[in-house]
Amino acid sequence: MFSFTKINLLCQPTQSAWLEQALDNLDLILLDHSHCERKAAGVAVNFLFRYPAHEDLVYQLTAIAQEELEHFEQVNQWLKRKNIPLAPLKPSPYGATLKQAIKKQEPHRLLDSLLVSALIEARSHERLGLLAQHCPDLELAKFYRGLMASEARHYGIYWVLATQYFDRTIVDLRLSELAQLESDTLSNLHPEPRIHS
Amino acid sequence: MFSFTKINLLCQPTQSAWLEQALDNLDLILLDHSHCERKAAGVAVNFLFRYPAHEDLVYQLTAIAQEELEHFEQVNQWLKRKNIPLAPLKPSPYGATLKQAIKKQEPHRLLDSLLVSALIEARSHERLGLLAQHCPDLELAKFYRGLMASEARHYGIYWVLATQYFDRTIVDLRLSELAQLESDTLSNLHPEPRIHS
Ligand SMILES: [Fe+2]
Ligand SMILES: [Fe+2]
Ligand SMILES: [Fe+2]
Ligand SMILES: [Fe+2]
Repeated sequence: MFSFTKINLLCQPTQSAWLEQALDNLDLILLDHSHCERKAAGVAVNFLFRYPAHEDLVYQLTAIAQEELEHFEQVNQWLKRKNIPLAPLKPSPYGATLKQAIKKQEPHRLLDSLLVSALIEARSHERLGLLAQHCPDLELAKFYRGLMASEARHYGIYWVLATQYFDRTIVDLRLSELAQLESDTLSNLHPEPRIHS
Repeated sequence: MFSFTKINLLCQPTQSAWLEQALDNLDLILLDHSHCERKAAGVAVNFLFRYPAHEDLVYQLTAIAQEELEHFEQVNQWLKRKNIPLAPLKPSPYGATLKQAIKKQEPHRLLDSLLVSALIEARSHERLGLLAQHCPDLELAKFYRGLMASEARHYGIYWVLATQYFDRTIVDLRLSELAQLESDTLSNLHPEPRIHS
């Protein structure tokens, strides 16, 4: 089976300015994290609707959708515990920028969608790892550490699905383009603290 | 707590013609059931996106979305076991007809959405019960019986949420209108065998 430790999808690591911003705004980061987990579940469920006869994709993304809903629930329990009410939150431009890069025509759309999801999961994995390492609330840090392993599995699964449905050379080429865009999008820190600011 | 045995949301019981049609087409019913579970998960997830700050709704529908994904997975395992490939399937007009009846303006939209979901879950519960009772494959019958309890809980939860966010008299009035429509929609058996034909 696939070992996720062997690949690093991201072009550029997160800059230290993000970590400082996040540590200064842990409550807001937690609220945004709730939105991220809900969106991650929504994306996985959307794949199930768009590709109902792609058996491998359906099996794998059903499992991911379930896990993201579990994360969503767990983050919401943390919000409750910290008396942070559920509230809408304006997203950073990150998600919309990557979504715009997804080609509208099949089969490109499937490839791009899988790779964009892989990159977002990889970035979440990296940033939750930073929070796990540096968050002063040790119990919260432990929670972030627990989620990291799932997010790594998720980005691995999205990448493996891409290589199942497309030639490896095509995947690598498109991945390098999208990974560049993903890193560029984060190169100027978004003023509002977010998981993907 | 709420006891679902006390309410019967449905206006009219299922006619015997549906059961005959379903028993003659168990493979097709199983495939359609997979689509129904995916749609049920999608509907619950959509509520989470549309009402992100309605705390009770978010907690309850996160749990329902998780269960529907579990059902989806279980039905897909049955399909695999019976060598029925995952395939798109044209839905009966049932879902679209009920969806059209949902008012576009809030707060009506929330009330109608909750009640339409309650009715669909109640009908699924009733029909899975008929399959559980009459399906000649006893193991499959057992599987249907296992799902019935969840679907009953689901329609109870949607109904309770409606009564939490709206006055009971308003809920009862609108429910009687929508329940009438739901039963009317099923009064002429749809020629293609479906869970909601
Ligand atoms: Fe997650
Ligand atoms: Fe994830
Ligand atoms: Fe279900
Ligand atoms: Fe259900």
